[in-house]
Amino acid sequence: MRKTLSIRELNRIAIVGVGLLGGSLGMAIRAAGSQARRVGIGRRQSSLDLAMSYDAVDEVTLDVACGVRQADLVVVCTPIGVIEDVFRAMAPHLGPECLVTDVASTKAKVVRAAERILGRKARYVGSHPIAGSEKTSVEFARADLFQAAGCVITPTKRSHPEAVEDIVAFWRALGAHPHILTPAEHDRALARVSHLPHAVAAALVLLAGEAIRYAGPGFGDTTRIASGDPALWRDIFATNRQAALRALDELERHLRRFRRVVEAGDGQALEAWLAKAQAVRDEWVRRRYAEREIQP
Amino acid sequence: MRKTLSIRELNRIAIVGVGLLGGSLGMAIRAAGSQARRVGIGRRQSSLDLAMSYDAVDEVTLDVACGVRQADLVVVCTPIGVIEDVFRAMAPHLGPECLVTDVASTKAKVVRAAERILGRKARYVGSHPIAGSEKTSVEFARADLFQAAGCVITPTKRSHPEAVEDIVAFWRALGAHPHILTPAEHDRALARVSHLPHAVAAALVLLAGEAIRYAGPGFGDTTRIASGDPALWRDIFATNRQAALRALDELERHLRRFRRVVEAGDGQALEAWLAKAQAVRDEWVRRRYAEREIQP
Repeated sequence: MRKTLSIRELNRIAIVGVGLLGGSLGMAIRAAGSQARRVGIGRRQSSLDLAMSYDAVDEVTLDVACGVRQADLVVVCTPIGVIEDVFRAMAPHLGPECLVTDVASTKAKVVRAAERILGRKARYVGSHPIAGSEKTSVEFARADLFQAAGCVITPTKRSHPEAVEDIVAFWRALGAHPHILTPAEHDRALARVSHLPHAVAAALVLLAGEAIRYAGPGFGDTTRIASGDPALWRDIFATNRQAALRALDELERHLRRFRRVVEAGDGQALEAWLAKAQAVRDEWVRRRYAEREIQP
Repeated sequence: MRKTLSIRELNRIAIVGVGLLGGSLGMAIRAAGSQARRVGIGRRQSSLDLAMSYDAVDEVTLDVACGVRQADLVVVCTPIGVIEDVFRAMAPHLGPECLVTDVASTKAKVVRAAERILGRKARYVGSHPIAGSEKTSVEFARADLFQAAGCVITPTKRSHPEAVEDIVAFWRALGAHPHILTPAEHDRALARVSHLPHAVAAALVLLAGEAIRYAGPGFGDTTRIASGDPALWRDIFATNRQAALRALDELERHLRRFRRVVEAGDGQALEAWLAKAQAVRDEWVRRRYAEREIQP
C-alpha cells in the first residue's frame, strides 16, 4: 500500500497570490512542521514584500514560471478572475509529479479550467478551505486560519487518486477537516451557506438607508461579509450563477412563508419558526466548537 | 433654567427584569459614579440571586410594588410580552415625580400602553438602547454595554418635557448616544436594521439544510442573531407587524434586482451593487468606531 504524502516530505511549495489565504497558508505550512522552501508568487512587488515581512514565505518572485519550477506543490490563491491565466502561465513549467491545488470559492468552472489547461502536466485537485474573513490582505493572515476549519476537496473522474489522497493529507496537516464533494455539489452547497448570505448582507446594507444610524451590533454581525472585496464576490456570483439563483429563489420562498405568519399574527407559528432556526443554529455552533475543542 | 438631572442625584433605581440588559444597566449605573441603591425586581428568585452574585444590583425582590416604592427612577427591562402587566403592577406604587422608562425593542405599542396605564402617576418616556446580543442572561452583562451605543428615546406629545431631558441625561451618563424619534419612526427604522436582519438570519439557517456542514465563519456572523430568544423575537415581530412587513417587501425588491443582475451575467452591475454595499457598510463601521474611539 502506498504511503500518503507527509507535509514534511515537501521540499518546495509555491503559493500563487499571498493575501489573507496565501499568507496564512505559508504560515500554517511552517507551523505544521514543514521545512519546505515557501515561494510566494504575486503580481505586485509591494504585496510580496509585505508577505516576506510577515514571514509568510521564504522567497518571492513576480515570475510564475520561476516560482513554480521544481515545486512539489503549487497552491493557487489568486482571485477567480485571473486563475485561468495563472494556470496557463504555470502549466509549461510544472513537473508531472507536481501536486497543484487552488483555494477558489467556486469550483465547477475553476476545476474544469484547471483540468483543461493543466491536463497531464501536473496532478491537480481543487480545494476550498472554508476560512477567511472580509479582509483580503496578508496583514490579517494567521498560522491557525485553517485549524478546525472545513476544507472541501473536489476531485473529478479525471483526478489522480493518489493526488486526491495527498491533497487531503496536506489540508489535514494544516489542521483542516477535509470533505470530499464533486465540484457541482460544492457549488450548490456553498451557494446556500456562503454566496446567498453575502447577497443578503449587501441587500440589508443597501436598504437600511437613513436608518443605518440606529443599527447596532446585530446589524454589524449580519452584514459583516458585505465589507468583502466586490471584485472577488462578483467573480464568485459570475462563476456560480445557477446555484446562486436557485438559492435566491429558495430564500424568497422562506421569507414569504415567514411573511404570511407575521401578517396573520400567528404568534405560535412565528415562535416555532424562530425556535427551529435557533435550534438548528445552536446545534451547528455546538458541533463547530466541539471540533475546535474551544469554548464559544 | 432648570438643571437637568444628574445620575448622582438618584437615590433609588428600580430595575425590573435583571437579564443581560437589566444587569448591564445596574453595573453601568454604578460604573457611572452613581451611589443609588439599585433594586432588582424579577419573577424568579434564581435570576435575582444570580444578578446579586454579579453585583448588578444591591437588593432584590419578587414584589414589584415593594421594589418600585420610593424609587426616583424605574427602568423596565422585561420581555415585551409581560411589559403591560409590569406597568399595571407598578402604577399604584409610583410617586408622581418618579421617572419611568423601559428598554423594549419596539416602541409604538409599548409607549401607548405605558401612557395609558401610568398616566399622570409617574413621568414616563420610552427608550431603546441599541445594545445587547443573542444572549439574554445576566451572566453576559457588562458595565460598558451602553458605552458609545445608540439609544433611541421616544417621547410623545404626552411626555413631560423635563422627563425627556432627564431620560436623555440618564442614558448619556451611561455612555450612550441618545437619538430622539417618535415611537412610529423608531419602529420603522428598527424594522429595517434589526427586525428584518433577524428574520433573514433565521431564514438563512432554515434553508441551509445539509449544506450547513460546509458553513464557515461568514455564515456564523450573518446568522448569529438567529440564536436569539424566539419568544422575545416573536413579541418584537408581533408588536411591529406593519413595519416588519414593509421591510420584508423592500428586501424582496432589492434581492430581485440583484437576482436580475446575476441572471443577466452583468459583471459590471454586479460589482457596482456589491461595491455600493461595501462602501455604505465601511462608512457605517468607520463612524461607529470613531464614536467609540477604538480600533475595529
